[in-house]
Amino acid sequence: MKSELPRLLSECDLDVALVLGPDGMSGANPIFRYLTGVADHLTGILIVHWTGRRQLIHGTMERDAARKTGLELINRNRWPMHEILKKYPQPLEASVEFYRRIFADLKIHGRVAFYGTGAIGAHHALLQRLQAELPGVEIACEFERDIFQLARETKDAAEIETMRQVGETTCQIVKATVKFLQSHEVRDERLVHQDGRPLTIGEVKNFIRMETLNRGLEEPEGHIFALGRDAGVPHNVGVAETPLVLGQTIVFDIYPRRSGGYYHDMTRTFCLGYAPPEIERAYRDVLECFEQVVTTLQLGQPTQTYQLQACDFFEARGRRTIRSDPKAQSGYIHGLGHGLGLELHEQPSFPTFGEHPELTLRPGMVFTIEPGLYYPEQGFGIRLEDTYCCDQSGEFHSLTPYPKELVIPLKAKSSPVSSSRRGSRSQRRAASPRGGCLF
Amino acid sequence: MKSELPRLLSECDLDVALVLGPDGMSGANPIFRYLTGVADHLTGILIVHWTGRRQLIHGTMERDAARKTGLELINRNRWPMHEILKKYPQPLEASVEFYRRIFADLKIHGRVAFYGTGAIGAHHALLQRLQAELPGVEIACEFERDIFQLARETKDAAEIETMRQVGETTCQIVKATVKFLQSHEVRDERLVHQDGRPLTIGEVKNFIRMETLNRGLEEPEGHIFALGRDAGVPHNVGVAETPLVLGQTIVFDIYPRRSGGYYHDMTRTFCLGYAPPEIERAYRDVLECFEQVVTTLQLGQPTQTYQLQACDFFEARGRRTIRSDPKAQSGYIHGLGHGLGLELHEQPSFPTFGEHPELTLRPGMVFTIEPGLYYPEQGFGIRLEDTYCCDQSGEFHSLTPYPKELVIPLKAKSSPVSSSRRGSRSQRRAASPRGGCLF
Repeated sequence: MKSELPRLLSECDLDVALVLGPDGMSGANPIFRYLTGVADHLTGILIVHWTGRRQLIHGTMERDAARKTGLELINRNRWPMHEILKKYPQPLEASVEFYRRIFADLKIHGRVAFYGTGAIGAHHALLQRLQAELPGVEIACEFERDIFQLARETKDAAEIETMRQVGETTCQIVKATVKFLQSHEVRDERLVHQDGRPLTIGEVKNFIRMETLNRGLEEPEGHIFALGRDAGVPHNVGVAETPLVLGQTIVFDIYPRRSGGYYHDMTRTFCLGYAPPEIERAYRDVLECFEQVVTTLQLGQPTQTYQLQACDFFEARGRRTIRSDPKAQSGYIHGLGHGLGLELHEQPSFPTFGEHPELTLRPGMVFTIEPGLYYPEQGFGIRLEDTYCCDQSGEFHSLTPYPKELVIPLKAKSSPVSSSRRGSRSQRRAASPRGGCLF
Repeated sequence: MKSELPRLLSECDLDVALVLGPDGMSGANPIFRYLTGVADHLTGILIVHWTGRRQLIHGTMERDAARKTGLELINRNRWPMHEILKKYPQPLEASVEFYRRIFADLKIHGRVAFYGTGAIGAHHALLQRLQAELPGVEIACEFERDIFQLARETKDAAEIETMRQVGETTCQIVKATVKFLQSHEVRDERLVHQDGRPLTIGEVKNFIRMETLNRGLEEPEGHIFALGRDAGVPHNVGVAETPLVLGQTIVFDIYPRRSGGYYHDMTRTFCLGYAPPEIERAYRDVLECFEQVVTTLQLGQPTQTYQLQACDFFEARGRRTIRSDPKAQSGYIHGLGHGLGLELHEQPSFPTFGEHPELTLRPGMVFTIEPGLYYPEQGFGIRLEDTYCCDQSGEFHSLTPYPKELVIPLKAKSSPVSSSRRGSRSQRRAASPRGGCLF
């Protein structure tokens, strides 16, 4: 949590943390956003001292957005670039001089680490020069598990409440999407418009996008709505031209964000009208695995426990896993879940390999549980995913209040389809009496 | 242009350029996007050899997106992480070993530069270690004017055609927004809904957002729709609760992007109903400055020429400028424009200070021209901005086909307003006979 930052700085023996907010990063700079709390366009340099003091160096044109942060503000024209450029016309030399003046004026010295998102090569070049040029400064950057990753690994009550709200809205989007699908008629095993044109994935994706935006969320990374064979490749987002065919799996993975803020992440797998037996069997395995995991979540347990448990589960049912074959392209081929917050993927992870005793379930953690089975050669894939949080008392709650039902029942009125298929569809519907009231 | 990359690599004496595509960057990693051409979720490492050969190291789950790039593909499990972790359980050591194997297998040596967007500190830590550990490799990162900046500084015909289309759509959004404003009635010097509630900036911003998305564009950095005093602070995006008052300036700066692709950038300044004389005078100055600049654009001229010309222009009219007072918060207080493409701000810039003989206008450049005047204490700001391109024959064209008219005429039918104001509004309308047909 944010309140742990002073302790984390001290434990890492850091005097100052500098968080850079270069232009053009917008939501891709989560640490800068974490500390400013402002979704407006804002660039600058954020300085966190070990004493707890926090300063923001900002530009004149963004002074209104800077004021919203509540941080101690310093206009960057305190070190006027036009004067620096007279003496140091080369941009790298001018930047080094700019930092030299900042460090001297704000009394920054000792062990200093840099954070934030930016151009990898250009910042490497700058930090190398700063290390060489700034007296009394040791540039000490961490490769992983840095102080902000550690702080953000657990969320405070306000963050969790926000994430709960984003989860509710996300479920409303899924519900609306199912209704949208159901509002179409069936012809020749496909969903069609009133004029008989087939409904395409592109149209559904557009519907999802507009629903998301209308409800005040954004989708910086898009979403997945993939059918059949494409659903069998975990990150295939779905092909726009594909018509919506009955009896194939749809992997619908939706991960929207409140504007410039917190993510939700959930996945449902659907079959329109009916599901063939091999898909139903695989779905049941994924659902049972999911339920086994979430009912055994326990404070203090290493996250890896659950990934290994999921591998055990699937292997016991004769399915290949990423553990039994790390290069597998079918079966259970990914991690069980991941933390999320201001990034879609953050700590904790649920790793398969290596030893990670430091990754244990703690109060304030928010993470996904998302087992899946993928068979692209057989034309299907399945994934089920909820976002979970661990509250202060150590209890686990789903932030994804949405049922898990494979088959989406469709309108009875439909154009003729082959009789064998129709039979199979009605059997499915009869076998799934709760289907009708869930959506 | 992209076709210049082999020459640029050779001129910079680079053997290999590595473009990193870490998770979570989406549109904020323009160089990775530039080379993959794919807007889908795709992470990996892109390798550009001086020979012209281009390889993409990608993950199994993203193999479908990787295939769309047309690049030579290598699955990252060619160097299996679970095996590396057995020998190197620490993540930084494991990453160094991963690169060591890649460099050996793909015969990468000599001068190697890294590009792409990512965590600044973590990548600095990694590159320092790679420099120390990889034999026969010199890590040579550029601080600025790197090979990709140079390549992207000019656009090819296909890129310009795309940007022209984005410009047309952006103008349609502005047109629709003006119509939306005009569809409201006036009461007590404000735009109101039919039930008398004042129309707020938040509602207009929402309209703009939905228009943008409905037309297939996205706004990763938002937009500016700021009124009165807020319009006087260049990057103030506008305050949602503010009601739309007549006779004050609205700075409407809109910079949408085609999904994961190219930006447009334009600004219009409007007054609802009428404009007070001091605003009209300032508007005329900005418009004349704009027209003077765009009619004198000339191949081979340093961009700085035009920024200095704009400063001359405004200073001659008794206005403060960023050149006469670099710390000014009122007057003409920013650069004249900036290049744009896959980033909203890229090369060329139009700098005020320093000497930049390398920044000259060349065929294929796409950039904004955006003079402005800001008087927050007097409650207004003005900016006018078109995106321009220079074609292969060296001619300059606006990509922003939208008129520049200050006053938005409103419905005649309105609730009572103070008679002096009403008089002033009708005078304005009479003085601007073209107003009615422009929107």
